[in-house]
Amino acid sequence: MTTFLARRIIRKALSEEKRVSTKTSAADLVTETDHVVEALILQELQQRFPSHRFIAEEAAAAGAKCVLTPSPTWIVDPIDGTCNFVHRFPTVAVSIGFAVNQELEFGVIYHCTEERLYTGRRGRGAFCNGQRLRVSGETDLSKALVLTEIGPRRDPTTLKLFLSNMERLLRAEAHGVRVIGSSTLALCHLASGAADAYYQFGLHCWDLAAATVIIREAGGVVMDTSGGPLDLMSCRVVAAGTREMAVLIAQALQTINYGRDDER
Amino acid sequence: MTTFLARRIIRKALSEEKRVSTKTSAADLVTETDHVVEALILQELQQRFPSHRFIAEEAAAAGAKCVLTPSPTWIVDPIDGTCNFVHRFPTVAVSIGFAVNQELEFGVIYHCTEERLYTGRRGRGAFCNGQRLRVSGETDLSKALVLTEIGPRRDPTTLKLFLSNMERLLRAEAHGVRVIGSSTLALCHLASGAADAYYQFGLHCWDLAAATVIIREAGGVVMDTSGGPLDLMSCRVVAAGTREMAVLIAQALQTINYGRDDER
Repeated sequence: MTTFLARRIIRKALSEEKRVSTKTSAADLVTETDHVVEALILQELQQRFPSHRFIAEEAAAAGAKCVLTPSPTWIVDPIDGTCNFVHRFPTVAVSIGFAVNQELEFGVIYHCTEERLYTGRRGRGAFCNGQRLRVSGETDLSKALVLTEIGPRRDPTTLKLFLSNMERLLRAEAHGVRVIGSSTLALCHLASGAADAYYQFGLHCWDLAAATVIIREAGGVVMDTSGGPLDLMSCRVVAAGTREMAVLIAQALQTINYGRDDER
Repeated sequence: MTTFLARRIIRKALSEEKRVSTKTSAADLVTETDHVVEALILQELQQRFPSHRFIAEEAAAAGAKCVLTPSPTWIVDPIDGTCNFVHRFPTVAVSIGFAVNQELEFGVIYHCTEERLYTGRRGRGAFCNGQRLRVSGETDLSKALVLTEIGPRRDPTTLKLFLSNMERLLRAEAHGVRVIGSSTLALCHLASGAADAYYQFGLHCWDLAAATVIIREAGGVVMDTSGGPLDLMSCRVVAAGTREMAVLIAQALQTINYGRDDER
């Protein structure tokens, strides 16, 4: 219910002029709507689950700690793709994940302009508008469509590493690299088999929480860029339809160190 | 009518396994559906306009000359975003432009999965599903969302130039760069004001013809990457909501020489 109300607010705001502020860099944007939607979602969830904990993007930007304890925890991104949103570029989503005992239990991602609701629940499969999702079975990097995002930092060193990673994949003759401006929706494309791999440095736990459940339940793999297990707080990820593909991507990448969500 | 039939064929094919061939490089793909859709469109148009000329992507790949004469000429891309199409990544379009006296008269672009029909006719405005399109009025590169595509060539020199162009825009603090895998749909986003600029080296006249009319009728500017007038056959373009923005982008770019469509 809240997701649909959030969608109404976001769609209305998409047609209006926006007051935009910046956060960690000139490319890290936030609008009034991010705050309004986050407040709406947290209020509803807090009323219904007063003992639960919450990690949310704008609360974190305002200084709230991002620590994943064993308590039931909701992990909320009110608008993923804020830069797209500011420009009315129609690739914008609401993402809500839920973890207990530090284990992701379910995730919901709503594509605000295309009316697509992606859901995943541990052990119960992943769906888009009721249709079961299934990742691609591709294991050959030279036949892969790979998705990534630029990340918020634009200093010369970070940019060099970002571009060098893209170059490594293109020189390995990946069919293509796409940058759509929303990590969660890119990860949903991966879950639906429309892409073979995703990697990013500089994303946050609220970009990953819901999508991770959805991808795993669609048969995919989500891991750390080192090739080890996913660390939700490490601000980096490789995801793919197959473990072989995820490992190939991880091996190709140079690390960009964005620090940790739980150490800010 | 043909466009809608084309869309039915493409949507059906999107759910099926595809036999994929390569053209100029490992990243330049073509499927049976490209050929079927192009034949369908050309057959219909040739029946109705037997004296007209045609320039079409797969005919050109098979060796037909791409020369824009003063005769009425249809310029057809049966599937723009073939690599997306192969991967079922849902950003795929049919593009049909029409020129007389070497002047673009109208253009139609159909987004096959989102049921969006973009149209533009010289002097009569540009529309998406009947809604008038209007470009962004942004003139400041540091507030711009910029779209581009990688292009088909993946040799080290071309890749270095492609990445260096992206780096120049990101260092100029553009809000973001997006790569969605379909030139025509990226140009439609520009026409609708959802992005502020587009540039590419390595696209073709069938990627540009329809979109150019739509962007101009939405109030935007389409020019050569040198800053001079658009040359439809030059395999390069800058488009923007404003002339100021187009010039800033053109000035930032290094040229990647892909030759000319009419000299192959």
